[in-house]
Amino acid sequence: MSEHPTSDHASHPGYADHKADVLARLKRIEGQVRGLQRMVDEDTYCIDVLTQVSAATKALQSVAVNLLDDHLRHCVIEGGAADPERAAELVTEATRAVERLVKS
Amino acid sequence: MSEHPTSDHASHPGYADHKADVLARLKRIEGQVRGLQRMVDEDTYCIDVLTQVSAATKALQSVAVNLLDDHLRHCVIEGGAADPERAAELVTEATRAVERLVKS
Amino acid sequence: MSEHPTSDHASHPGYADHKADVLARLKRIEGQVRGLQRMVDEDTYCIDVLTQVSAATKALQSVAVNLLDDHLRHCVIEGGAADPERAAELVTEATRAVERLVKS
Amino acid sequence: MSEHPTSDHASHPGYADHKADVLARLKRIEGQVRGLQRMVDEDTYCIDVLTQVSAATKALQSVAVNLLDDHLRHCVIEGGAADPERAAELVTEATRAVERLVKS
Repeated sequence: MSEHPTSDHASHPGYADHKADVLARLKRIEGQVRGLQRMVDEDTYCIDVLTQVSAATKALQSVAVNLLDDHLRHCVIEGGAADPERAAELVTEATRAVERLVKS
Repeated sequence: MSEHPTSDHASHPGYADHKADVLARLKRIEGQVRGLQRMVDEDTYCIDVLTQVSAATKALQSVAVNLLDDHLRHCVIEGGAADPERAAELVTEATRAVERLVKS
Repeated sequence: MSEHPTSDHASHPGYADHKADVLARLKRIEGQVRGLQRMVDEDTYCIDVLTQVSAATKALQSVAVNLLDDHLRHCVIEGGAADPERAAELVTEATRAVERLVKS
Repeated sequence: MSEHPTSDHASHPGYADHKADVLARLKRIEGQVRGLQRMVDEDTYCIDVLTQVSAATKALQSVAVNLLDDHLRHCVIEGGAADPERAAELVTEATRAVERLVKS
């Protein structure tokens, strides 16, 4: 875990209202990754495996964009409104997360 | 499954020699995605979840690059050496797979 | 131009304090793209051209992450603090921008 | 320039037949990057600048995919058909280029 300025937020993460939806998406991605193992196990043609790897990657990126939206909406805006110094830290932290996403 | 020009290759995919390694990597990614569900379930801080989503995405992209390497090495080069027309189809197909990867 | 909820911000964009730096980075990227034309014109080896295309792409993505940081810091946090409804619109808009970045 | 196994290909790069098209695309991207400088200079709203950065990035990635297609088609397939050892080097080199693209 990173040292982050909002450890007190841990019990109410930004995605609190969408928790079931995030879990359902991740469950589906787990199924996609298990499907990939089955494809490889059955010697599926490389390009068809690659197509499914791209689909799973897209699904993960989509989860990330949704988590980021919730985070900005609830943690950054709300946490930042109370305290400008903390707002600055929250933005720096969020931008670094976007940077990791863009590069992954 | 896509209609591809090399259905006869299906029984000997490009990754045949690395099958155990590809499966081990996918198994590890499945574990990462299950770990993500645990993190969300335990209300882990958004940014820490995002960091792990980026790690799983990177791991998937890395599997894709390895599959593509095997595919070029074994299916495209070998399949293409025998028949120039087929080589052209195989390159078009491989390039489209790269396009999907780059965009995902 | 998109229809956005903050047209009144146009005269003081989030990057106002870093304008010279953003312009210098873009100038450098313009130079990279001109360098690419020279490489192609001189029949440079494909892989060397591709390496430079990747470098220019990375430089553009880095400009984007910096612009986003400034935007979150100045437009979203500050604009959002004043008005919760507007904050919601600003987050939606910023998330869509991140989505386009991640997919590009 | 990288040390690559095909320096003798430099005078006939894979994109030789599409040189005018590649140059036209790069010229257009140069225009997009200059347009970005104008936007920043005129204090255009951050999100509109970001949209154009994403468009320029996509255009660069598209040039890259095209260059890779030409490279696989002409340099890798043709160079590789003559000499299996060289084919192996060419694939390794091409895969590394894809890896840089995917991460950029």
